[in-house]
Amino acid sequence: MKEIGAAMRLIRRGTEELLIEAELVEKLRNGRPLRVKAGFDPTAPDLHFGHTVLLNKLRHFQELGHHVMFLIGDFTGMIGDPSGKNATRPPLSREQVLANAETYREQVFKILDPEKTEICFNSAWMNEMDAAGMIRLAAQQTVARMLERDDFAKRYAGEQPISIHEFLYPLCQGYDSVVMKADIELGGTDQRFNLLMGRELQKHYGQAPQCVLMMPLLEGLDGVNKMSKSLGNYIGIAEPPKEIFGKTMSISDNLMWRYYDLLSFRGTDEIAALRTEVEAGRNPRDVKVMLAQEFVARFHGQKAADDALADFEARFRNNEIPDDIPEVRIAVGEGMPVFKVIQEAGLTGTTSEASRMIEQGAVKLDGERVEDRARLLLAGNRVILQVGKRKFATVVLE
Amino acid sequence: MKEIGAAMRLIRRGTEELLIEAELVEKLRNGRPLRVKAGFDPTAPDLHFGHTVLLNKLRHFQELGHHVMFLIGDFTGMIGDPSGKNATRPPLSREQVLANAETYREQVFKILDPEKTEICFNSAWMNEMDAAGMIRLAAQQTVARMLERDDFAKRYAGEQPISIHEFLYPLCQGYDSVVMKADIELGGTDQRFNLLMGRELQKHYGQAPQCVLMMPLLEGLDGVNKMSKSLGNYIGIAEPPKEIFGKTMSISDNLMWRYYDLLSFRGTDEIAALRTEVEAGRNPRDVKVMLAQEFVARFHGQKAADDALADFEARFRNNEIPDDIPEVRIAVGEGMPVFKVIQEAGLTGTTSEASRMIEQGAVKLDGERVEDRARLLLAGNRVILQVGKRKFATVVLE
Repeated sequence: MKEIGAAMRLIRRGTEELLIEAELVEKLRNGRPLRVKAGFDPTAPDLHFGHTVLLNKLRHFQELGHHVMFLIGDFTGMIGDPSGKNATRPPLSREQVLANAETYREQVFKILDPEKTEICFNSAWMNEMDAAGMIRLAAQQTVARMLERDDFAKRYAGEQPISIHEFLYPLCQGYDSVVMKADIELGGTDQRFNLLMGRELQKHYGQAPQCVLMMPLLEGLDGVNKMSKSLGNYIGIAEPPKEIFGKTMSISDNLMWRYYDLLSFRGTDEIAALRTEVEAGRNPRDVKVMLAQEFVARFHGQKAADDALADFEARFRNNEIPDDIPEVRIAVGEGMPVFKVIQEAGLTGTTSEASRMIEQGAVKLDGERVEDRARLLLAGNRVILQVGKRKFATVVLE
Repeated sequence: MKEIGAAMRLIRRGTEELLIEAELVEKLRNGRPLRVKAGFDPTAPDLHFGHTVLLNKLRHFQELGHHVMFLIGDFTGMIGDPSGKNATRPPLSREQVLANAETYREQVFKILDPEKTEICFNSAWMNEMDAAGMIRLAAQQTVARMLERDDFAKRYAGEQPISIHEFLYPLCQGYDSVVMKADIELGGTDQRFNLLMGRELQKHYGQAPQCVLMMPLLEGLDGVNKMSKSLGNYIGIAEPPKEIFGKTMSISDNLMWRYYDLLSFRGTDEIAALRTEVEAGRNPRDVKVMLAQEFVARFHGQKAADDALADFEARFRNNEIPDDIPEVRIAVGEGMPVFKVIQEAGLTGTTSEASRMIEQGAVKLDGERVEDRARLLLAGNRVILQVGKRKFATVVLE
């Protein structure tokens, strides 16, 4: 019983929602390794840290001795967008799917244990299904139930077209759980409806329904918006060591603890101890350096992590940053251009002076020269600004 | 051009709606025999005259030299009701489908020319379709469009469940038209939505859209309700000659002309000539006899038709029905028991006297003894009632 308590604590770490907790405890009590399912897009993976939240949770299950099934949803990927409305989703060939799977393998095995991971393709069973099978599957759900899904409900109410095949995709995803005999499925909170579909279909097919574990969407570097490529607030797992290190160092202290919970391999107790130390006066920058090093080491090895740290320290040393920099808090709203932040921080008298200093190459942000006067600084960050040789400020952007 | 005009007149005969007439004229102008599609249920056929309205229209197309495709929708029949809600619709086996097809063949070739009829099974192409194909097909229509169908709209509004597979069936029916390259599809007015689906899918697949010809639902013997087994107002095509003859003789004069239009093989001009004769004073009973004889001859041969007529005439002769029977009109509303009709017609003074006469076996209706005093007589009929030896009335039930 103590073991199950510890397991549940690890499983709950960072989790947004777990359905149904009592069922999961019961499954853990049975002692049999759980079949843990998570589905992934078959398109060319270019993963950022946001994607690794789920991988990390899978890793927790592996640490607890369970069987992870990494499902590549290639069946629908090979169909593309049959309604022809989304020209940017051409059908993938079998070769592309396999090439993408290979890229996944390289990336995800930096987090998952290959020995405990089964890579599955749903084309293996869905290509065997005939039209009659699809019709039988479609008979298991009602139109009304499907229109309960948030995005469908909104589009239907807003008279935006919904192609009928869009109703079939959640059924296919649910059917995957039936074939895979999943005990639990992991996904983002935005996948709630589809994850529950697996439960319902499993019941229909006489199986014990899977539990559903939803992870939150990771906040980006700004600490506010969801991490995404298009917002530019991401860390890509294929980025060079210096970038991963620098971007990690740029996040706020609050966000740092969030990233520890969701992304670090460190144990829950170890993280709790670090928190206590910081509360007792330890410089949070030390703890952020540990996290940045962990990330670089994970994707580029320990040597790269050491180098990135040395580089980071050298940069600040060479800049001869004084020990006692004044700290300024600035409310930046939706974001503020750097020339304005400089003036607000009192480093120049006017914004035009700030702009001129940037043009002259005399402004540094966290030790790096600022090239673009219009560069937006976002709330939730803490940066060191330097103007000329002697003017410094630590700016807390709020 | 004159030929097309004549063809269109025959095609229009009895038709409820034809979409799009200009397109059909254009197709006829091309001179190529049209591919004419009509779909039929794969369940055990026990056809009544209502079903033959469509067969008759197919026959018209054959007379005009076109190619008739008699489609048995066995694909969905072999699936049954996968939602399990309708226990009375078990899946049909391949053997049952073939046996049913054989029964169809026997029955429909009494109307259609076997030389010009192609019997098709949609399982031939639907069994070849895989789940991906079904998904691609489903992508061609939207949920909103499907919910426009009358029965779906009502059920959705009334919170009655609609299984998702019910959206797939109209698509399958439409896809049949694509595979069959139908130039025109025939169906009942209740099939409007599904028939139009064929047009839409053909356009999507780059074909000229089929025309759609809708036949009315045939009124039953009462002249009011749709002919149906459950209402008991039908003539089955497998009924014995005497029944077919007698039931035909029981219909009203108005309904007789409707049956001529929709069911008789006689030409449009010939029927028009009969109408003129009746208007000029010819006894409509003669014309009804001709129709009754045609029906018996169609399903039992000419000899049976002659026998039925002789039997019918003998029955009335033996009853020594006088030539000048008084005619009474009685409003029967939703129907009136025969004992009440007798009293209303003035054949007895009271309803209890009428009932007593029936009990004594002294009442005849169209020459046959009435056994049940509660027997309902329906509006739209014309019957001869006889009470005792000498009291007669022709009763027009309104």
